[in-house]
Amino acid sequence: MGNALTHIDAEGTARMVDVGGKTDTRRIAVASGRIVMTDYALEAIRTGDAPKGDVLGTARIAGIMAAKKTGDLIPMCHPLTLDAVNLDFAFVSDAVVVTATASLTGKTGVEMEALTATSVALLTIYDMAKALDKGMVIESIRLIEKIGGKSGHWKAAPDDS
Amino acid sequence: MGNALTHIDAEGTARMVDVGGKTDTRRIAVASGRIVMTDYALEAIRTGDAPKGDVLGTARIAGIMAAKKTGDLIPMCHPLTLDAVNLDFAFVSDAVVVTATASLTGKTGVEMEALTATSVALLTIYDMAKALDKGMVIESIRLIEKIGGKSGHWKAAPDDS
Amino acid sequence: MGNALTHIDAEGTARMVDVGGKTDTRRIAVASGRIVMTDYALEAIRTGDAPKGDVLGTARIAGIMAAKKTGDLIPMCHPLTLDAVNLDFAFVSDAVVVTATASLTGKTGVEMEALTATSVALLTIYDMAKALDKGMVIESIRLIEKIGGKSGHWKAAPDDS
Amino acid sequence: MGNALTHIDAEGTARMVDVGGKTDTRRIAVASGRIVMTDYALEAIRTGDAPKGDVLGTARIAGIMAAKKTGDLIPMCHPLTLDAVNLDFAFVSDAVVVTATASLTGKTGVEMEALTATSVALLTIYDMAKALDKGMVIESIRLIEKIGGKSGHWKAAPDDS
Amino acid sequence: MGNALTHIDAEGTARMVDVGGKTDTRRIAVASGRIVMTDYALEAIRTGDAPKGDVLGTARIAGIMAAKKTGDLIPMCHPLTLDAVNLDFAFVSDAVVVTATASLTGKTGVEMEALTATSVALLTIYDMAKALDKGMVIESIRLIEKIGGKSGHWKAAPDDS
Amino acid sequence: MGNALTHIDAEGTARMVDVGGKTDTRRIAVASGRIVMTDYALEAIRTGDAPKGDVLGTARIAGIMAAKKTGDLIPMCHPLTLDAVNLDFAFVSDAVVVTATASLTGKTGVEMEALTATSVALLTIYDMAKALDKGMVIESIRLIEKIGGKSGHWKAAPDDS
Repeated sequence: MGNALTHIDAEGTARMVDVGGKTDTRRIAVASGRIVMTDYALEAIRTGDAPKGDVLGTARIAGIMAAKKTGDLIPMCHPLTLDAVNLDFAFVSDAVVVTATASLTGKTGVEMEALTATSVALLTIYDMAKALDKGMVIESIRLIEKIGGKSGHWKAAPDDS
Repeated sequence: MGNALTHIDAEGTARMVDVGGKTDTRRIAVASGRIVMTDYALEAIRTGDAPKGDVLGTARIAGIMAAKKTGDLIPMCHPLTLDAVNLDFAFVSDAVVVTATASLTGKTGVEMEALTATSVALLTIYDMAKALDKGMVIESIRLIEKIGGKSGHWKAAPDDS
Repeated sequence: MGNALTHIDAEGTARMVDVGGKTDTRRIAVASGRIVMTDYALEAIRTGDAPKGDVLGTARIAGIMAAKKTGDLIPMCHPLTLDAVNLDFAFVSDAVVVTATASLTGKTGVEMEALTATSVALLTIYDMAKALDKGMVIESIRLIEKIGGKSGHWKAAPDDS
Repeated sequence: MGNALTHIDAEGTARMVDVGGKTDTRRIAVASGRIVMTDYALEAIRTGDAPKGDVLGTARIAGIMAAKKTGDLIPMCHPLTLDAVNLDFAFVSDAVVVTATASLTGKTGVEMEALTATSVALLTIYDMAKALDKGMVIESIRLIEKIGGKSGHWKAAPDDS
Repeated sequence: MGNALTHIDAEGTARMVDVGGKTDTRRIAVASGRIVMTDYALEAIRTGDAPKGDVLGTARIAGIMAAKKTGDLIPMCHPLTLDAVNLDFAFVSDAVVVTATASLTGKTGVEMEALTATSVALLTIYDMAKALDKGMVIESIRLIEKIGGKSGHWKAAPDDS
Repeated sequence: MGNALTHIDAEGTARMVDVGGKTDTRRIAVASGRIVMTDYALEAIRTGDAPKGDVLGTARIAGIMAAKKTGDLIPMCHPLTLDAVNLDFAFVSDAVVVTATASLTGKTGVEMEALTATSVALLTIYDMAKALDKGMVIESIRLIEKIGGKSGHWKAAPDDS
């Protein structure tokens, strides 16, 4: 089974994996990504971030709410009752970096929830800053770490992009 | 106005832009992105793509359905009644490239719809191939072209990433 | 175009029809269907229908709410801003008959909204009466009439099922 | 209790059944239905089905995604975390037959999920072929089999419609 | 920890509480609220309530369906699989009183589900009677009782508003 | 017609009003409400409000997103494409006051959108502060002002609650 596409059945049609035989275990997934932009846009986000409410505050909530909708967005994903999902933001030289952590006690992993939270948080930053810079680019959305389930503990190779 | 963050009001709180004074015009937006993966995973997607139903067929539908949910996902986006949204897929040496085109006759642009369709299609590819390669990375989600509205015709600079 | 499948593009991939060139006109669609059941279940619905709240009252609301979700359920449907959708119920000898009427001033027809309202109302009846009769069967969900749009006025042939 | 409508309370108002006292067991439900159409439409679906993406591929995904929304559509249904839902399609002389199987380890049955998946898959086929044949009719949506829970193993009488 | 805002992390950003370490227990929450209106509107609701379907029947279903959407509406709420949610209505001299009871076997309380059901039922009454009285006011939405979880059994002080 | 319940048809069943004959006009609605709490909870919200992200920032976004879901929550509401919805918050002696303004160029009023935004923002405040004070009470959710449509300009009587 190892290397077969798990969502395609024997005849090549899309199919949801049956997790009925799996056991409930604690599972955690961490994903990240970044949105590259001009100094001007980056500075506006950093400053606008100050008083109350802000681009990143909005992106954080959008990411959390999107994680809860993962099963509605990704056709073959199971609906899950997440234990938690949270996001962190960091400024690097030319980008905002988003990191999302999702956790669950259940039968299937939460990497799609962490990746969806990351993606929608990045899209929200784009939306809220696009008047400043339409040329922003979202880069390096990836799974960073995955704990629990039969594949055990997995970590991504260092990102040298 | 030009260079202010349009979703942050005078006091720094998140705010939805009022489009009540805008006129209905035809608007089109094109976005793209890619998911980089091992040869092995890429070949499995290409082959599994063959008979009926497939990774890309599922990703296409997920992208179209997600575009219709953009206003539910991105907090400050207006709900829109899209004229159309469609996706195209291409294989390049180490990646699948997704291109999404959204169009509307309305008061506000559809770039978020095109970007959301692209992002969710790429996440769906990740989901359906993650059993083969957890290390896939989503890269270069960006607006390619935007037609209509007061900013006229905008094209991204060539992608040399 | 006449007889080609309109949601499949030249290469056979699913595709949303672009309605950008269509004009806003008043459109109405009527759909119906029925759920066949034992006398016992039929009588319970008829009676329980009496005092306040009831199987049909719940089915009516479920149908109306589902019509508003049509664009979320049917992948290639456009999101629409319905003018109205309403449902009527009738008892026949061995079944409850549901009729739904949807209307819109827009660029595309509302037959899917009328059919979705009908289907979800019938499923709701099943859900609420299944403790009495698991063998209920939903029959003859069909478009009855369609007014407006380039295809003009269309009426179904009489149902002799 | 046996034969009372379970969603109607003593005074006749709609009411959600409390499943708090039930135990988690493995439950499976199978439903089916068919859409009757002209030879012309049937042949177009069969052929368009070939290369990549297709009517049935889209209907399959629509059905799976709808099953996950059952609790949103059917007012008195409990929200469930499905183990799996999958659909199969078959061509018969004058129709496409859809069969959906849903499974769950939980406190309540999944027959509404299987019936909802079937119904929405059939509606999607209608949507994608309606340019060819507006007169298609959806027939015989019914529960075929139900395993698990206090009612044990239930099978429908043979369909002689 | 006791008296800190639980959804704000150390640095003041919104954050979802991780319930991964909590155990599944039976939890019940009861909430209520009322909508104050003119005698005229109150009488119309009471009377219109009679024959079949009605303001309160619609509000009841809206409240139940909204409870199931709580995790979609309240950003830091966990998605839950409710055991049940039910609503009761009563007429007092100048108002309709709504009481909602939600229950769950899970890791986190259901007070938000009970409060959301109450609020949306009251909004639905407003919507359905607003042609009679735009000046209706929703008052006293509050938690009445909460059973289960580490805070044990909590009851609100008597409402003397 | 004037004083009849507009969502109940001649026979007393719930019914969506057909807005097909209405014309598109600019419509604005303002609603407000407050959540009464202990000094302790109020002070925690005020302070936690400071650095970045906060109770009110989250409530603001929840309210905006809920306004866009009004047609999904309130059974007889039409789906609308809002021009804008925004929220303001104020601290009074014992409460946080929420005011929401919704606007639209369309066929039907936006009072339900303004009221829904207010209600969900208040529920979100409850959720985020409930660890401090379970006894918080939501009061005086009401329409304040309504502009546009056949009923012209309507203002609520002063609130002397």
